[in-house]
Amino acid sequence: MKNIRLILEYDGTQYLGWQRQPQGPTIQEVLEETLKKIIGEEIRVTGSGRTDSGVHALGQVANFKTDSRLTPEEFQKSLNSLLPKDIVVKESSQVDLDFHSQFSARSKVYIYKILNRPYPSALERNRCWFMPFLLNLPAMREASLTLLGEHDFRSFVLSDRNVKTTVRRVLGVVLDKKSEGMVEFEIEATGFLKAMVRSIVGTLVEVGRGKITPEDFKAILGSKNRTRAGPTAPARGLFLKEVKY
Amino acid sequence: MKNIRLILEYDGTQYLGWQRQPQGPTIQEVLEETLKKIIGEEIRVTGSGRTDSGVHALGQVANFKTDSRLTPEEFQKSLNSLLPKDIVVKESSQVDLDFHSQFSARSKVYIYKILNRPYPSALERNRCWFMPFLLNLPAMREASLTLLGEHDFRSFVLSDRNVKTTVRRVLGVVLDKKSEGMVEFEIEATGFLKAMVRSIVGTLVEVGRGKITPEDFKAILGSKNRTRAGPTAPARGLFLKEVKY
Repeated sequence: MKNIRLILEYDGTQYLGWQRQPQGPTIQEVLEETLKKIIGEEIRVTGSGRTDSGVHALGQVANFKTDSRLTPEEFQKSLNSLLPKDIVVKESSQVDLDFHSQFSARSKVYIYKILNRPYPSALERNRCWFMPFLLNLPAMREASLTLLGEHDFRSFVLSDRNVKTTVRRVLGVVLDKKSEGMVEFEIEATGFLKAMVRSIVGTLVEVGRGKITPEDFKAILGSKNRTRAGPTAPARGLFLKEVKY
Repeated sequence: MKNIRLILEYDGTQYLGWQRQPQGPTIQEVLEETLKKIIGEEIRVTGSGRTDSGVHALGQVANFKTDSRLTPEEFQKSLNSLLPKDIVVKESSQVDLDFHSQFSARSKVYIYKILNRPYPSALERNRCWFMPFLLNLPAMREASLTLLGEHDFRSFVLSDRNVKTTVRRVLGVVLDKKSEGMVEFEIEATGFLKAMVRSIVGTLVEVGRGKITPEDFKAILGSKNRTRAGPTAPARGLFLKEVKY
Protein backbone atom coordinates (compact mmCIF):
# COMPACT_ATOMS: atom_id res chain seq x y z
CA MET A 1 0.00 0.00 0.00
CA LYS A 2 1.29 3.46 -0.83
CA ASN A 3 0.02 6.99 -0.38
CA ILE A 4 0.20 9.29 -3.42
CA ARG A 5 -0.07 13.06 -3.09
CA LEU A 6 -1.11 15.19 -6.05
CA ILE A 7 -0.86 18.94 -6.53
CA LEU A 8 -3.63 20.04 -8.88
CA GLU A 9 -4.40 23.04 -11.05
CA TYR A 10 -7.95 23.35 -12.30
CA ASP A 11 -10.27 25.71 -14.07
CA GLY A 12 -13.44 25.40 -11.99
CA THR A 13 -15.74 27.04 -14.57
CA GLN A 14 -17.33 23.79 -15.78
CA TYR A 15 -17.50 22.01 -12.38
CA LEU A 16 -19.81 22.00 -9.39
CA GLY A 17 -16.79 22.33 -7.10
CA TRP A 18 -14.51 19.73 -5.59
CA GLN A 19 -16.82 17.30 -3.83
CA ARG A 20 -18.76 14.55 -5.58
CA GLN A 21 -22.46 15.21 -5.94
CA PRO A 22 -25.30 13.84 -8.01
CA GLN A 23 -26.25 17.09 -9.80
CA GLY A 24 -23.23 17.31 -12.06
CA PRO A 25 -19.48 16.92 -12.62
CA THR A 26 -17.02 17.68 -9.84
CA ILE A 27 -13.23 17.61 -9.70
CA GLN A 28 -13.19 14.72 -7.20
CA GLU A 29 -15.48 12.61 -9.37
CA VAL A 30 -13.47 13.20 -12.55
CA LEU A 31 -10.21 12.35 -10.74
CA GLU A 32 -11.64 9.18 -9.23
CA GLU A 33 -13.15 8.03 -12.52
CA THR A 34 -9.89 8.69 -14.36
CA LEU A 35 -7.86 6.79 -11.75
CA LYS A 36 -10.31 3.90 -12.09
CA LYS A 37 -9.58 3.82 -15.83
CA ILE A 38 -5.84 3.77 -15.16
CA ILE A 39 -5.58 1.12 -12.45
CA GLY A 40 -8.93 -0.62 -12.75
CA GLU A 41 -9.98 -0.21 -9.14
CA GLU A 42 -12.24 2.10 -7.17
CA ILE A 43 -10.12 4.87 -5.66
CA ARG A 44 -11.17 7.35 -3.02
CA VAL A 45 -9.38 10.67 -3.47
CA THR A 46 -9.19 13.00 -0.45
CA GLY A 47 -8.84 16.72 -1.05
CA SER A 48 -7.44 19.36 1.29
CA GLY A 49 -10.94 20.76 1.42
CA ARG A 50 -13.88 21.52 -0.80
CA THR A 51 -13.80 24.26 -3.33
CA ASP A 52 -17.21 25.65 -4.33
CA SER A 53 -18.81 25.50 -7.74
CA GLY A 54 -16.83 27.64 -10.21
CA VAL A 55 -13.83 28.17 -7.91
CA HIS A 56 -10.38 27.54 -9.43
CA ALA A 57 -7.19 26.04 -8.04
CA LEU A 58 -3.53 26.70 -8.70
CA GLY A 59 -2.41 24.29 -5.99
CA GLN A 60 -5.17 22.10 -4.59
CA VAL A 61 -3.70 19.08 -2.79
CA ALA A 62 -5.24 15.61 -2.81
CA ASN A 63 -4.07 12.13 -1.86
CA PHE A 64 -5.13 8.52 -2.36
CA LYS A 65 -3.95 5.10 -1.23
CA THR A 66 -3.34 2.31 -3.67
CA ASP A 67 -1.56 -1.01 -4.14
CA SER A 68 -0.82 -0.14 -7.77
CA ARG A 69 2.79 -0.58 -8.90
CA LEU A 70 2.70 2.68 -10.87
CA THR A 71 5.25 5.27 -9.77
CA PRO A 72 4.10 8.80 -8.80
CA GLU A 73 5.53 10.06 -12.12
CA GLU A 74 3.58 7.43 -14.03
CA PHE A 75 0.39 8.47 -12.22
CA GLN A 76 1.07 12.08 -13.20
CA LYS A 77 1.66 11.23 -16.85
CA SER A 78 -1.33 8.91 -17.16
CA LEU A 79 -3.62 11.36 -15.39
CA ASN A 80 -2.49 14.31 -17.49
CA SER A 81 -3.02 12.34 -20.68
CA LEU A 82 -6.53 11.17 -19.69
CA LEU A 83 -7.97 14.04 -17.62
CA PRO A 84 -9.96 16.78 -19.37
CA LYS A 85 -7.70 19.72 -20.20
CA ASP A 86 -9.18 21.88 -17.44
CA ILE A 87 -7.66 19.66 -14.71
CA VAL A 88 -3.87 19.21 -14.54
CA VAL A 89 -1.57 17.33 -12.14
CA LYS A 90 1.34 19.69 -11.43
CA GLU A 91 3.17 17.37 -9.06
CA SER A 92 2.85 13.79 -7.89
CA SER A 93 4.84 12.20 -5.08
CA GLN A 94 4.75 9.31 -2.68
CA VAL A 95 4.23 10.41 0.93
CA ASP A 96 4.01 8.88 4.36
CA LEU A 97 1.04 6.57 4.87
CA ASP A 98 -0.34 8.84 7.60
CA PHE A 99 -0.34 11.95 5.37
CA HIS A 100 -3.91 13.24 4.98
CA SER A 101 -4.58 16.13 2.58
CA GLN A 102 -7.16 17.68 4.86
CA PHE A 103 -6.09 16.87 8.41
CA SER A 104 -2.34 17.34 7.87
CA ALA A 105 -2.79 20.82 6.37
CA ARG A 106 -1.32 23.66 8.45
CA SER A 107 -2.60 26.57 6.38
CA LYS A 108 -4.12 27.48 3.03
CA VAL A 109 -3.62 30.45 0.75
CA TYR A 110 -6.42 31.83 -1.43
CA ILE A 111 -6.27 34.57 -4.05
CA TYR A 112 -9.26 36.62 -5.16
CA LYS A 113 -9.00 38.67 -8.38
CA ILE A 114 -11.05 41.80 -8.95
CA LEU A 115 -10.81 43.53 -12.33
CA ASN A 116 -11.12 47.21 -11.47
CA ARG A 117 -11.30 49.16 -14.70
CA PRO A 118 -14.10 50.70 -16.75
CA TYR A 119 -14.51 47.74 -19.16
CA PRO A 120 -14.52 43.98 -18.62
CA SER A 121 -11.91 41.52 -19.93
CA ALA A 122 -12.67 39.10 -22.76
CA LEU A 123 -9.70 36.87 -21.97
CA GLU A 124 -10.02 36.84 -18.15
CA ARG A 125 -13.82 36.85 -17.99
CA ASN A 126 -14.06 33.52 -16.11
CA ARG A 127 -11.17 34.27 -13.78
CA CYS A 128 -12.04 37.55 -12.08
CA TRP A 129 -14.86 39.71 -10.73
CA PHE A 130 -15.41 42.72 -12.96
CA MET A 131 -15.95 45.88 -10.88
CA PRO A 132 -16.13 49.09 -12.93
CA PHE A 133 -16.46 51.48 -9.95
CA LEU A 134 -13.07 52.85 -8.91
CA LEU A 135 -12.12 51.13 -5.66
CA ASN A 136 -10.36 52.88 -2.78
CA LEU A 137 -7.55 50.38 -2.29
CA PRO A 138 -5.91 52.01 0.76
CA ALA A 139 -9.26 51.82 2.61
CA MET A 140 -9.69 48.18 1.55
CA ARG A 141 -6.15 47.41 2.69
CA GLU A 142 -6.78 49.08 6.07
CA ALA A 143 -9.97 47.05 6.53
CA SER A 144 -8.30 43.80 5.50
CA LEU A 145 -5.61 44.19 8.17
CA THR A 146 -8.27 43.85 10.89
CA LEU A 147 -8.64 40.20 9.75
CA LEU A 148 -5.15 39.30 10.99
CA GLY A 149 -4.96 36.99 13.99
CA GLU A 150 -7.58 34.77 15.60
CA HIS A 151 -11.21 35.75 15.17
CA ASP A 152 -14.67 34.24 15.17
CA PHE A 153 -15.55 34.59 11.48
CA ARG A 154 -19.29 33.94 11.89
CA SER A 155 -20.00 37.22 10.04
CA PHE A 156 -18.23 35.89 6.97
CA VAL A 157 -19.57 32.37 6.64
CA LEU A 158 -22.52 30.73 4.96
CA SER A 159 -24.32 28.44 7.38
CA ASP A 160 -22.71 25.02 7.52
CA ARG A 161 -23.96 22.50 10.03
CA ASN A 162 -20.84 20.37 9.79
CA VAL A 163 -18.62 22.97 11.37
CA LYS A 164 -17.86 22.89 15.10
CA THR A 165 -16.33 26.30 15.48
CA THR A 166 -16.18 29.41 13.33
CA VAL A 167 -12.92 30.58 14.92
CA ARG A 168 -9.98 30.71 12.52
CA ARG A 169 -6.51 32.30 12.54
CA VAL A 170 -5.54 34.56 9.64
CA LEU A 171 -1.78 34.53 9.09
CA GLY A 172 -1.46 37.05 6.30
CA VAL A 173 -3.33 39.37 3.95
CA VAL A 174 -2.03 41.25 0.90
CA LEU A 175 -3.98 43.53 -1.38
CA ASP A 176 -2.18 44.69 -4.54
CA LYS A 177 -2.91 46.24 -7.88
CA LYS A 178 -1.33 44.31 -10.74
CA SER A 179 -1.21 45.32 -14.41
CA GLU A 180 -4.27 46.32 -16.48
CA GLY A 181 -6.46 47.08 -13.43
CA MET A 182 -6.33 43.63 -11.84
CA VAL A 183 -6.53 43.82 -8.03
CA GLU A 184 -5.38 40.72 -6.17
CA PHE A 185 -6.37 39.97 -2.59
CA GLU A 186 -4.34 37.17 -1.02
CA ILE A 187 -5.22 35.63 2.33
CA GLU A 188 -3.54 32.87 4.30
CA ALA A 189 -5.27 31.21 7.26
CA THR A 190 -5.11 28.02 9.30
CA GLY A 191 -8.48 27.13 7.84
CA PHE A 192 -11.40 28.60 5.97
CA LEU A 193 -15.16 28.38 6.38
CA LYS A 194 -17.77 27.96 3.67
CA ALA A 195 -17.63 30.96 1.29
CA MET A 196 -15.47 32.82 3.81
CA VAL A 197 -13.08 34.45 1.32
CA ARG A 198 -15.94 35.45 -0.97
CA SER A 199 -17.89 36.98 1.94
CA ILE A 200 -14.80 38.89 3.07
CA VAL A 201 -14.13 40.12 -0.48
CA GLY A 202 -17.77 41.15 -1.00
CA THR A 203 -17.56 43.24 2.18
CA LEU A 204 -14.10 44.66 1.34
CA VAL A 205 -15.53 45.85 -1.96
CA GLU A 206 -18.24 47.72 0.00
CA VAL A 207 -15.35 49.49 1.76
CA GLY A 208 -13.63 50.13 -1.59
CA ARG A 209 -16.80 51.70 -2.99
CA GLY A 210 -17.15 53.94 0.07
CA LYS A 211 -20.42 52.39 1.22
CA ILE A 212 -18.89 51.47 4.56
CA THR A 213 -15.67 52.51 6.34
CA PRO A 214 -12.77 50.32 7.49
CA GLU A 215 -14.14 50.85 11.03
CA ASP A 216 -17.54 49.50 9.90
CA PHE A 217 -15.71 46.48 8.47
CA LYS A 218 -14.06 45.86 11.82
CA ALA A 219 -17.44 46.19 13.57
CA ILE A 220 -18.99 43.68 11.16
CA LEU A 221 -16.22 41.18 11.93
CA GLY A 222 -16.84 41.75 15.66
CA SER A 223 -20.64 41.45 15.35
CA LYS A 224 -20.54 37.73 14.41
CA ASN A 225 -23.64 38.37 12.34
CA ARG A 226 -23.69 37.28 8.68
CA THR A 227 -26.55 39.62 7.80
CA ARG A 228 -24.31 42.65 8.38
CA ALA A 229 -21.69 41.58 5.84
CA GLY A 230 -21.72 42.54 2.17
CA PRO A 231 -22.77 40.29 -0.72
CA THR A 232 -20.81 37.14 -1.47
CA ALA A 233 -18.33 37.79 -4.30
CA PRO A 234 -18.73 35.49 -7.33
CA ALA A 235 -16.84 32.19 -7.41
CA ARG A 236 -15.05 32.86 -10.69
CA GLY A 237 -12.57 35.29 -9.06
CA LEU A 238 -11.42 32.81 -6.41
CA PHE A 239 -8.31 30.59 -6.60
CA LEU A 240 -7.01 28.10 -4.04
CA LYS A 241 -3.33 29.00 -4.47
CA GLU A 242 -1.52 26.72 -2.06
CA VAL A 243 -1.94 24.32 0.84
CA LYS A 244 0.90 24.27 3.35
CA TYR A 245 1.81 21.24 5.48
CA MET B 1 -21.01 61.21 -40.91
CA LYS B 2 -18.51 60.30 -38.25
CA ASN B 3 -15.72 57.78 -37.96
CA ILE B 4 -15.59 55.69 -34.78
CA ARG B 5 -12.46 53.83 -33.76
CA LEU B 6 -12.68 50.88 -31.38
CA ILE B 7 -9.90 49.11 -29.47
CA LEU B 8 -10.93 45.49 -28.92
CA GLU B 9 -9.94 42.64 -26.66
CA TYR B 10 -11.13 39.19 -27.65
CA ASP B 11 -10.73 35.56 -26.81
CA GLY B 12 -10.43 33.98 -30.24
CA THR B 13 -11.06 30.39 -29.07
CA GLN B 14 -14.65 30.22 -30.33
CA TYR B 15 -14.15 32.20 -33.56
CA LEU B 16 -12.92 31.50 -37.07
CA GLY B 17 -10.75 34.61 -36.87
CA TRP B 18 -11.51 38.25 -37.66
CA GLN B 19 -12.87 38.21 -41.20
CA ARG B 20 -16.46 37.29 -42.10
CA GLN B 21 -16.88 33.90 -43.68
CA PRO B 22 -19.73 31.51 -44.33
CA GLN B 23 -18.36 28.52 -42.32
CA GLY B 24 -18.87 29.99 -38.86
CA PRO B 25 -18.75 32.94 -36.47
CA THR B 26 -16.06 35.60 -36.80
CA ILE B 27 -15.26 38.69 -34.75
CA GLN B 28 -16.12 41.03 -37.61
CA GLU B 29 -19.50 39.40 -38.17
CA VAL B 30 -20.45 39.52 -34.48
CA LEU B 31 -19.44 43.19 -34.25
CA GLU B 32 -21.38 44.13 -37.38
CA GLU B 33 -24.48 42.23 -36.28
CA THR B 34 -24.35 43.81 -32.83
CA LEU B 35 -23.95 47.31 -34.29
CA LYS B 36 -26.94 46.60 -36.53
CA LYS B 37 -29.00 45.80 -33.43
CA ILE B 38 -27.89 49.06 -31.79
CA ILE B 39 -28.41 51.55 -34.62
CA GLY B 40 -30.63 49.61 -36.97
CA GLU B 41 -28.45 49.93 -40.04
CA GLU B 42 -25.94 47.78 -41.90
CA ILE B 43 -22.45 48.72 -40.72
CA ARG B 44 -19.18 47.73 -42.32
CA VAL B 45 -16.45 47.40 -39.70
CA THR B 46 -12.84 47.60 -40.91
CA GLY B 47 -10.14 45.89 -38.86
CA SER B 48 -6.41 46.65 -38.77
CA GLY B 49 -5.96 43.24 -40.36
CA ARG B 50 -7.22 39.69 -40.12
CA THR B 51 -6.45 37.51 -37.18
CA ASP B 52 -6.60 33.76 -37.90
CA SER B 53 -8.99 31.26 -36.38
CA GLY B 54 -8.32 30.89 -32.63
CA VAL B 55 -5.97 33.90 -32.39
CA HIS B 56 -6.64 36.37 -29.55
CA ALA B 57 -6.40 40.14 -29.32
CA LEU B 58 -5.52 42.49 -26.49
CA GLY B 59 -5.65 45.55 -28.73
CA GLN B 60 -7.16 44.92 -32.16
CA VAL B 61 -8.24 48.20 -33.76
CA ALA B 62 -11.31 48.62 -35.94
CA ASN B 63 -13.29 51.55 -37.28
CA PHE B 64 -16.65 52.22 -38.87
CA LYS B 65 -18.49 55.19 -40.34
CA THR B 66 -21.98 56.09 -39.28
CA ASP B 67 -24.55 58.90 -39.17
CA SER B 68 -25.76 57.72 -35.78
CA ARG B 69 -26.03 60.35 -33.05
CA LEU B 70 -24.60 58.00 -30.44
CA THR B 71 -21.39 59.24 -28.81
CA PRO B 72 -18.28 57.01 -28.83
CA GLU B 73 -18.88 56.27 -25.11
CA GLU B 74 -22.47 55.25 -25.85
CA PHE B 75 -21.24 52.92 -28.59
CA GLN B 76 -18.78 51.36 -26.13
CA LYS B 77 -21.44 50.86 -23.46
CA SER B 78 -24.07 49.45 -25.82
CA LEU B 79 -21.56 47.14 -27.48
CA ASN B 80 -20.18 45.85 -24.18
CA SER B 81 -23.68 45.14 -22.91
CA LEU B 82 -24.75 43.29 -26.09
CA LEU B 83 -21.59 41.57 -27.31
CA PRO B 84 -20.79 38.03 -26.15
CA LYS B 85 -18.47 38.14 -23.14
CA ASP B 86 -15.47 36.97 -25.18
CA ILE B 87 -15.39 40.26 -27.14
CA VAL B 88 -14.88 43.56 -25.27
CA VAL B 89 -14.56 47.17 -26.41
CA LYS B 90 -11.68 48.65 -24.37
CA GLU B 91 -11.80 52.09 -25.93
CA SER B 92 -14.03 53.97 -28.31
CA SER B 93 -13.28 57.38 -29.83
CA GLN B 94 -14.24 59.59 -32.72
CA VAL B 95 -11.40 60.01 -35.22
CA ASP B 96 -10.70 61.87 -38.42
CA LEU B 97 -12.84 60.79 -41.37
CA ASP B 98 -9.75 59.66 -43.26
CA PHE B 99 -8.55 57.34 -40.47
CA HIS B 100 -8.49 53.74 -41.74
CA SER B 101 -7.69 50.93 -39.28
CA GLN B 102 -5.68 49.01 -41.85
CA PHE B 103 -4.07 51.59 -44.11
CA SER B 104 -3.25 54.13 -41.39
CA ALA B 105 -1.41 51.55 -39.25
CA ARG B 106 2.32 52.18 -38.85
CA SER B 107 3.20 49.00 -36.98
CA LYS B 108 1.71 46.08 -35.07
CA VAL B 109 2.86 44.21 -32.00
CA TYR B 110 2.16 40.52 -31.48
CA ILE B 111 2.86 38.33 -28.45
CA TYR B 112 3.25 34.56 -28.59
CA LYS B 113 3.09 32.59 -25.32
CA ILE B 114 4.85 29.24 -24.90
CA LEU B 115 4.33 27.34 -21.65
CA ASN B 116 7.69 25.68 -21.06
CA ARG B 117 7.36 23.39 -18.06
CA PRO B 118 6.83 19.64 -17.60
CA TYR B 119 3.03 19.81 -17.18
CA PRO B 120 0.34 21.81 -19.01
CA SER B 121 -1.84 24.55 -17.50
CA ALA B 122 -5.53 24.04 -16.78
CA LEU B 123 -6.26 27.75 -16.51
CA GLU B 124 -4.15 28.95 -19.46
CA ARG B 125 -4.82 25.98 -21.75
CA ASN B 126 -6.44 28.06 -24.53
CA ARG B 127 -3.94 30.89 -24.30
CA CYS B 128 -0.53 29.29 -24.78
CA TRP B 129 1.40 26.54 -26.56
CA PHE B 130 2.41 23.82 -24.12
CA MET B 131 5.98 22.70 -24.75
CA PRO B 132 7.33 20.23 -22.15
CA PHE B 133 10.87 19.98 -23.60
CA LEU B 134 13.24 22.42 -21.90
CA LEU B 135 13.92 25.23 -24.37
CA ASN B 136 17.31 26.88 -24.81
CA LEU B 137 16.16 30.49 -24.48
CA PRO B 138 19.54 32.18 -25.15
CA ALA B 139 19.76 30.31 -28.48
CA MET B 140 16.18 31.29 -29.35
CA ARG B 141 16.94 34.91 -28.43
CA GLU B 142 20.06 34.89 -30.61
CA ALA B 143 18.08 33.48 -33.55
CA SER B 144 15.23 35.97 -33.06
CA LEU B 145 17.62 38.93 -33.33
CA THR B 146 18.36 38.00 -36.95
CA LEU B 147 14.75 39.01 -37.72
CA LEU B 148 15.44 42.69 -36.96
CA GLY B 149 15.35 45.05 -39.92
CA GLU B 150 13.98 44.65 -43.42
CA HIS B 151 13.79 41.12 -44.83
CA ASP B 152 11.90 39.09 -47.36
CA PHE B 153 9.87 36.81 -45.05
CA ARG B 154 8.85 34.29 -47.73
CA SER B 155 10.26 31.48 -45.55
CA PHE B 156 7.79 32.36 -42.82
CA VAL B 157 4.53 32.84 -44.69
CA LEU B 158 1.67 30.61 -45.78
CA SER B 159 0.88 31.20 -49.43
CA ASP B 160 -1.43 34.16 -49.89
CA ARG B 161 -2.32 35.29 -53.39
CA ASN B 162 -3.47 38.71 -52.23
CA VAL B 163 -0.06 39.84 -51.14
CA LYS B 164 2.17 41.90 -53.44
CA THR B 165 5.42 41.64 -51.54
CA THR B 166 6.69 39.47 -48.71
CA VAL B 167 9.19 42.11 -47.56
CA ARG B 168 8.51 43.49 -44.08
CA ARG B 169 10.48 45.50 -41.52
CA VAL B 170 10.81 44.09 -38.00
CA LEU B 171 11.23 46.90 -35.47
CA GLY B 172 11.70 44.91 -32.28
CA VAL B 173 11.84 41.43 -30.77
CA VAL B 174 11.85 40.43 -27.10
CA LEU B 175 11.97 36.91 -25.69
CA ASP B 176 11.45 36.61 -21.93
CA LYS B 177 10.61 34.02 -19.33
CA LYS B 178 7.76 35.10 -17.07
CA SER B 179 6.48 33.33 -13.94
CA GLU B 180 5.47 29.64 -13.84
CA GLY B 181 7.39 28.68 -17.01
CA MET B 182 5.59 31.04 -19.40
CA VAL B 183 7.87 32.24 -22.20
CA GLU B 184 6.70 35.33 -24.08
CA PHE B 185 7.95 36.26 -27.52
CA GLU B 186 7.03 39.79 -28.58
CA ILE B 187 7.55 41.08 -32.09
CA GLU B 188 6.83 44.48 -33.63
CA ALA B 189 6.85 45.00 -37.38
CA THR B 190 5.51 47.41 -39.98
CA GLY B 191 3.28 44.60 -41.18
CA PHE B 192 2.79 40.87 -40.93
CA LEU B 193 2.10 38.14 -43.47
CA LYS B 194 -0.31 35.23 -43.16
CA ALA B 195 0.73 33.01 -40.21
CA MET B 196 4.11 34.82 -40.10
CA VAL B 197 4.45 35.00 -36.31
CA ARG B 198 3.36 31.39 -35.87
CA SER B 199 5.84 30.22 -38.55
CA ILE B 200 8.64 32.20 -36.88
CA VAL B 201 7.72 30.80 -33.45
CA GLY B 202 7.52 27.23 -34.75
CA THR B 203 11.03 27.62 -36.16
CA LEU B 204 12.38 29.38 -33.04
CA VAL B 205 11.14 26.41 -31.00
CA GLU B 206 13.21 24.12 -33.27
CA VAL B 207 16.19 26.25 -32.23
CA GLY B 208 15.14 26.04 -28.57
CA ARG B 209 14.95 22.25 -28.76
CA GLY B 210 18.43 22.06 -30.35
CA LYS B 211 17.16 20.64 -33.64
CA ILE B 212 18.65 23.56 -35.55
CA THR B 213 21.16 26.30 -34.62
CA PRO B 214 20.66 30.08 -34.62
CA GLU B 215 22.81 30.09 -37.78
CA ASP B 216 20.41 27.60 -39.40
CA PHE B 217 17.57 29.93 -38.45
CA LYS B 218 19.33 32.82 -40.18
CA ALA B 219 19.91 30.64 -43.26
CA ILE B 220 16.23 29.67 -43.34
CA LEU B 221 15.25 33.35 -43.28
CA GLY B 222 17.69 33.98 -46.14
CA SER B 223 16.52 30.98 -48.17
CA LYS B 224 13.04 32.47 -48.84
CA ASN B 225 11.75 28.92 -48.88
CA ARG B 226 8.79 28.00 -46.65
CA THR B 227 9.57 24.29 -46.76
CA ARG B 228 12.77 24.87 -44.78
CA ALA B 229 10.99 26.51 -41.82
CA GLY B 230 9.63 24.64 -38.80
CA PRO B 231 6.00 23.75 -38.15
CA THR B 232 3.44 26.53 -37.68
CA ALA B 233 2.84 27.12 -33.96
CA PRO B 234 -0.80 26.74 -32.84
CA ALA B 235 -3.11 29.78 -32.96
CA ARG B 236 -4.08 29.65 -29.28
CA GLY B 237 -0.71 31.09 -28.13
CA LEU B 238 -0.92 34.19 -30.35
CA PHE B 239 -2.18 37.63 -29.27
CA LEU B 240 -2.44 40.82 -31.33
CA LYS B 241 -1.23 43.14 -28.58
CA GLU B 242 -1.30 46.58 -30.16
CA VAL B 243 -1.64 48.49 -33.41
CA LYS B 244 0.33 51.72 -33.63
CA TYR B 245 -0.67 54.70 -35.80
